[in-house]
Amino acid sequence: MPSDTRTRIQEVARELFVSQGVQNTSLRQISDRLGITKPALYYHFASRDDLVRSIVQPMVEDIERFVATRQPGDARQLLEDYFELIWRHREVTMMMVRELSVLGYLDLGTRMFDWRRRIIALLLGPELTQAQHIRATVALGGMSDCSVEYANLPVEEVKPAAVEAAAAALGL
Amino acid sequence: MPSDTRTRIQEVARELFVSQGVQNTSLRQISDRLGITKPALYYHFASRDDLVRSIVQPMVEDIERFVATRQPGDARQLLEDYFELIWRHREVTMMMVRELSVLGYLDLGTRMFDWRRRIIALLLGPELTQAQHIRATVALGGMSDCSVEYANLPVEEVKPAAVEAAAAALGL
Repeated sequence: MPSDTRTRIQEVARELFVSQGVQNTSLRQISDRLGITKPALYYHFASRDDLVRSIVQPMVEDIERFVATRQPGDARQLLEDYFELIWRHREVTMMMVRELSVLGYLDLGTRMFDWRRRIIALLLGPELTQAQHIRATVALGGMSDCSVEYANLPVEEVKPAAVEAAAAALGL
Repeated sequence: MPSDTRTRIQEVARELFVSQGVQNTSLRQISDRLGITKPALYYHFASRDDLVRSIVQPMVEDIERFVATRQPGDARQLLEDYFELIWRHREVTMMMVRELSVLGYLDLGTRMFDWRRRIIALLLGPELTQAQHIRATVALGGMSDCSVEYANLPVEEVKPAAVEAAAAALGL
């Protein structure tokens, strides 16, 4: 099943990328770990960048969908849903935090900045003071830290306190 | 003046480390930028690691002093002083965020975790629930994000809102 191999390649790659960094992981290591040949890996992914991109892509699409479809409204519900969004993709976040160059070559740096800006606008409205921006950085940056620091806890143990703290930081 | 050369080497190195990463910066680039010879640079620093260490060291000492000497007390004042502490060293933080491997070879990962733990204990007392820990992660992680995201603003424009948000996140 080629699609199954593809998924296994992605799983092993993500694990290695998170634990030892993208730049320290070769396609050879990934194929060795899977017990497949390098050509078999190349059949699915033309390069390591291609593989990284395929791992990051579901997060990108999920966040794009979130910011494109959400309407302003219940800010607390929005914080909760946003927390679940970043929680789902916390492994990818860990991978990118570990190797910020990934953000560069996927051109994600500016897009992430834009997502953050749009989520803050959903939470607090489009016209923000600098102080509101700073408070939003504490709230959203802090939630993101939680998704990494408590990555191995059950989400239901992390989310309530993280959302509560973020809501308070925003002054909600 | 050798000590002046030493300081200039550190300044140029820090600038290059922050903008392009530690691993992408060679001692040759640093000496070229300064218009000195590589041996002249080696006179001051035996290796790039040695140079990195000397740049990170003032932050390490400053934080060690802070956690060693502060007493529990006015939590809000503590947050303010902690914000100023991380603000002073925000360039080093940016350098380390950009290249987390630095944390590894300076053995800073566990020490940072320990500092964070001690600062949380100063703020909230030694016996913490998991929810308090999570709220503290939002507060302190969020303040740290501010020191990077608004690094170029005057501190007096960032600190009040950042401390306010962190205090609220902690439920102070």
